[in-house]
Amino acid sequence: MYQLYGDEFQDNQSSDKKDMSRLLKLARTFNCFHLSDLQNKEYYPFVVNRVQVGLIRSDILKFLLQYPDVFQFQSNHVLLNPALKNYVDRSKSVDAVLRDLRSQKVLSTLKGWRDENFEVRATYSTENLLKMDRSATCLFGICNYGVDINGYTNDPKKGLCIWLQKRSRTKQRWPGKWDNMVGGGLSCGYSILETAFKEAEEEASIPNELMLKLKSCGSVSFFFENEQGLFPNTEFVFDLELPPDFIPKNKDGEVEEFELLSAQDALDRTFSSEFKTTSCPVLIDFLIRHGFIRPDTEPHYPEIVELLHVSLQSVYGKIINSPVSEENGSTGDT
Amino acid sequence: MYQLYGDEFQDNQSSDKKDMSRLLKLARTFNCFHLSDLQNKEYYPFVVNRVQVGLIRSDILKFLLQYPDVFQFQSNHVLLNPALKNYVDRSKSVDAVLRDLRSQKVLSTLKGWRDENFEVRATYSTENLLKMDRSATCLFGICNYGVDINGYTNDPKKGLCIWLQKRSRTKQRWPGKWDNMVGGGLSCGYSILETAFKEAEEEASIPNELMLKLKSCGSVSFFFENEQGLFPNTEFVFDLELPPDFIPKNKDGEVEEFELLSAQDALDRTFSSEFKTTSCPVLIDFLIRHGFIRPDTEPHYPEIVELLHVSLQSVYGKIINSPVSEENGSTGDT
Repeated sequence: MYQLYGDEFQDNQSSDKKDMSRLLKLARTFNCFHLSDLQNKEYYPFVVNRVQVGLIRSDILKFLLQYPDVFQFQSNHVLLNPALKNYVDRSKSVDAVLRDLRSQKVLSTLKGWRDENFEVRATYSTENLLKMDRSATCLFGICNYGVDINGYTNDPKKGLCIWLQKRSRTKQRWPGKWDNMVGGGLSCGYSILETAFKEAEEEASIPNELMLKLKSCGSVSFFFENEQGLFPNTEFVFDLELPPDFIPKNKDGEVEEFELLSAQDALDRTFSSEFKTTSCPVLIDFLIRHGFIRPDTEPHYPEIVELLHVSLQSVYGKIINSPVSEENGSTGDT
Repeated sequence: MYQLYGDEFQDNQSSDKKDMSRLLKLARTFNCFHLSDLQNKEYYPFVVNRVQVGLIRSDILKFLLQYPDVFQFQSNHVLLNPALKNYVDRSKSVDAVLRDLRSQKVLSTLKGWRDENFEVRATYSTENLLKMDRSATCLFGICNYGVDINGYTNDPKKGLCIWLQKRSRTKQRWPGKWDNMVGGGLSCGYSILETAFKEAEEEASIPNELMLKLKSCGSVSFFFENEQGLFPNTEFVFDLELPPDFIPKNKDGEVEEFELLSAQDALDRTFSSEFKTTSCPVLIDFLIRHGFIRPDTEPHYPEIVELLHVSLQSVYGKIINSPVSEENGSTGDT
């Protein structure tokens, strides 16, 4: 059903993969959930207020259906009970279910409860329907949004150099793995720029005067899956050229160390199991935008660029009328 | 079946489009062929050597089926006759058909015969199967590849400024429309970099010493359709910062004039009917990468970025066994 990082990464013996570049393999690893799998019977649309906002795997569904006042299964769709008519009611009910499941210790991702909420909506530009602890969004296949800052210098000798952080070993997800200099999820109540400034301060002590050079450079989107759940992910990408004498310092205890690497060393590190798989897209996009990964040397260049920008925004948002109207009359929320 | 530029662009009256940003509308215009339409019965896979390399619309198919020695219709697939076993034979046979159709004056796109060939292959990294005059590739829905150079300056007063070209009024396609400073299709025998240098010289007289600053910055991909045919397109994107006193000069007669615009003026121009629709992705990508279009001011930012990088490389390349094995035994080309 899904490929774990290590399995997929080491499976290069089959003949149709023999000429696949390392970068293409990596791009397929962080997109190991294939959008074509949406037709797979093991996944069910998650519908809130008649709009698809996520995707639920059958191994997770069985736990949710223990709470029929909150989750309903109709015509192969999982509905948040339409009687929960507003943001507050929906958020409270789902939170109660998740806290109960957490106490049962049946879903490993809930061990990493964060006390930090993410907004749930169909696509980035549509209304917030409820909020949910960020540890739980992968159970519902809900799109996560985050911010990443590529801190770099142009060294007279080494050329383009990139700051990377090593995540603290106490982090719930990807402990001790290498990661981009600064990154964080978009929590409830914080805008993209507020998140960028907050994380730059907390993770790397970047003073505001240096942040004046922060440059918005695009976004990457990819769909990762592991044993914990589904991770459709969009990262808003920023570049920040840093003075050669600036050294990031962590404040919040979430970073073990920072290291400044040449572009080649940073690229090589993405291929190691020591790099957080879901942070590779931001670094690869950076190396492409800065001309380090080029189409004259990477034969799969266009496919890799496409795999850095998969169409997540078109996956969800569909109006789901049939399961409700067929079996439940109306949501009462028109 | 398809939306022309003007129709789609002016259709903003329906309620679900009322809050769609101008940029999102434009991104949907240059992606007016929706990949979901692949299931549409009006389109048939074009198969060469058992691999899908294109897509043929029913209004075009009827002309091709006048040549049963070259094109065969089996199980809703259009096959290049498997008896044509190599690159040279395939190229010659298709060329003869196209020249005959051109003489009949039944397909308007062939009026623009270029005497310039594009390679036909399933995906960018797979083998060349035949070559075809570039005026004809839209009849077969074959992926085109091109190169674009964003020429820009950083003006002390105006900030980021971009050179645009106005296409000659004598051009077959998009005559007199505004376009990126330098661009050209990847013709047979030219690499990406060779094409960039050739076009920079011919279109804008950019000296080699300035081209030393040419920077590879990614690629855009989109799927456009108009009355002439299908245009799945991938452009390799380069940025070139130019000195403030450099003025591009055309040599090959294909450019009417150049103009240096502020980022805002350039963006505004993409919304006008005076801009070549299929050149908008490169300019919008440039304005995103340079921080002019930002997620804090453009609510549909992630969707727009995704629409600049649609998954063309995964559309084609499928091994098609069934139509051949069911009805024709074998291609004889294994």
